[in-house]
Amino acid sequence: MDAFKVIEIKESVFEDNNRQAAVLRDELKQSRTFLLNLMSSPGSGKTTTVVRTIEALKDEMKIGVVEADVDSDVDAATVARTGARVIQVHTGGMCHMDANMTRQGLSGLDTQDLDFVILENIGNLLCPAEFDTGAVKNAMILSVPEGDDKPLKYPLMFSVVDVLLVNKIDAMSFFDFDLEAVRRRVARLNPKIRIIPISAKTGQGIDEWAGWIRSEVRRWQQDK
Amino acid sequence: MDAFKVIEIKESVFEDNNRQAAVLRDELKQSRTFLLNLMSSPGSGKTTTVVRTIEALKDEMKIGVVEADVDSDVDAATVARTGARVIQVHTGGMCHMDANMTRQGLSGLDTQDLDFVILENIGNLLCPAEFDTGAVKNAMILSVPEGDDKPLKYPLMFSVVDVLLVNKIDAMSFFDFDLEAVRRRVARLNPKIRIIPISAKTGQGIDEWAGWIRSEVRRWQQDK
Repeated sequence: MDAFKVIEIKESVFEDNNRQAAVLRDELKQSRTFLLNLMSSPGSGKTTTVVRTIEALKDEMKIGVVEADVDSDVDAATVARTGARVIQVHTGGMCHMDANMTRQGLSGLDTQDLDFVILENIGNLLCPAEFDTGAVKNAMILSVPEGDDKPLKYPLMFSVVDVLLVNKIDAMSFFDFDLEAVRRRVARLNPKIRIIPISAKTGQGIDEWAGWIRSEVRRWQQDK
Repeated sequence: MDAFKVIEIKESVFEDNNRQAAVLRDELKQSRTFLLNLMSSPGSGKTTTVVRTIEALKDEMKIGVVEADVDSDVDAATVARTGARVIQVHTGGMCHMDANMTRQGLSGLDTQDLDFVILENIGNLLCPAEFDTGAVKNAMILSVPEGDDKPLKYPLMFSVVDVLLVNKIDAMSFFDFDLEAVRRRVARLNPKIRIIPISAKTGQGIDEWAGWIRSEVRRWQQDK
């Protein structure tokens, strides 16, 4: 048996994505499954962060991962080695996941008994920001080598997320990256955002990030 | 007077983009203007590379730049400081440039007297790969921090370009990046591709890159 399934998803026929997303969130509420939508540029460290996150939390909750990719299985293979339940969805060239596409991924994964599911969205700072996937919370990763000007260039993405992980902070000395400038630029777009500097490579900051997830999952499972 | 113009471009009404692209290339041939389409992820160093390229070539040819962005002017302001003629085009959320959008940018820039124009495409490894912009040649940047697995995940982009610049090679020791693995993976997708390792920060490799442009511009201007 393969370590993970692969499904080719169909573009949504539903025009009303926001309504589909709300319905999906209701279903996730009933199954007590917390869905996190994780977005970023290509190469910002999404998969390494997902692996670190699973390692930090797998002894206390049941975790699944939906890996969205245009047509490769590289990330699903990496994540499957953690022992978490993983499904790879292929979007066939589409640069985002919407609520109905996410539902297809969750159905293939079978999430009824899972506490926490990460949707690793397509590597892209534009399209994914425009679609509510049905996730309970949204997070993005900005990596230090990408530069501190990204909030100026991709404002929508920074506006729609609950958490910003600033990854590869171990490389800060190597790049001309001003974390305080990022904080100021992001605060203008999104005053309530939580910013957590991490290094998925060294593990720095992962405790704080896992702590945020832990409390959000608890709240989601306990709220009526 | 501002250092550069900004135009809001309209989505193309032409269904036959390939034909529009061919027409645009014919026009560029007549005006002896070589158009290079430069693509990459956000934060890979496109703008810094454009600045370095202008510095290397501006004494021997007339250069213009079309900066495509969703809605910011950050890159155009940076490039305008080189003294090159620059126009900023706003795609209004669209994640690619097509031939007609490129034509709008070139018209705004006024390219009749220019030898070499760089189209700095939207920061995205997916959508831009699907559209012929009318450029004479296509190049992409992969930066070392993005990882050596990108050809596996974004095969179309690596298939459609003539040149791959591997940028931030000064950071190679800091990241787990296997240049030979990239060469092998890219060769399977695109045997004729030219791969040039560069550091836009330190200037390493820029001579080779400028040399490639110089010979391509000459050939374009001399061929009947």
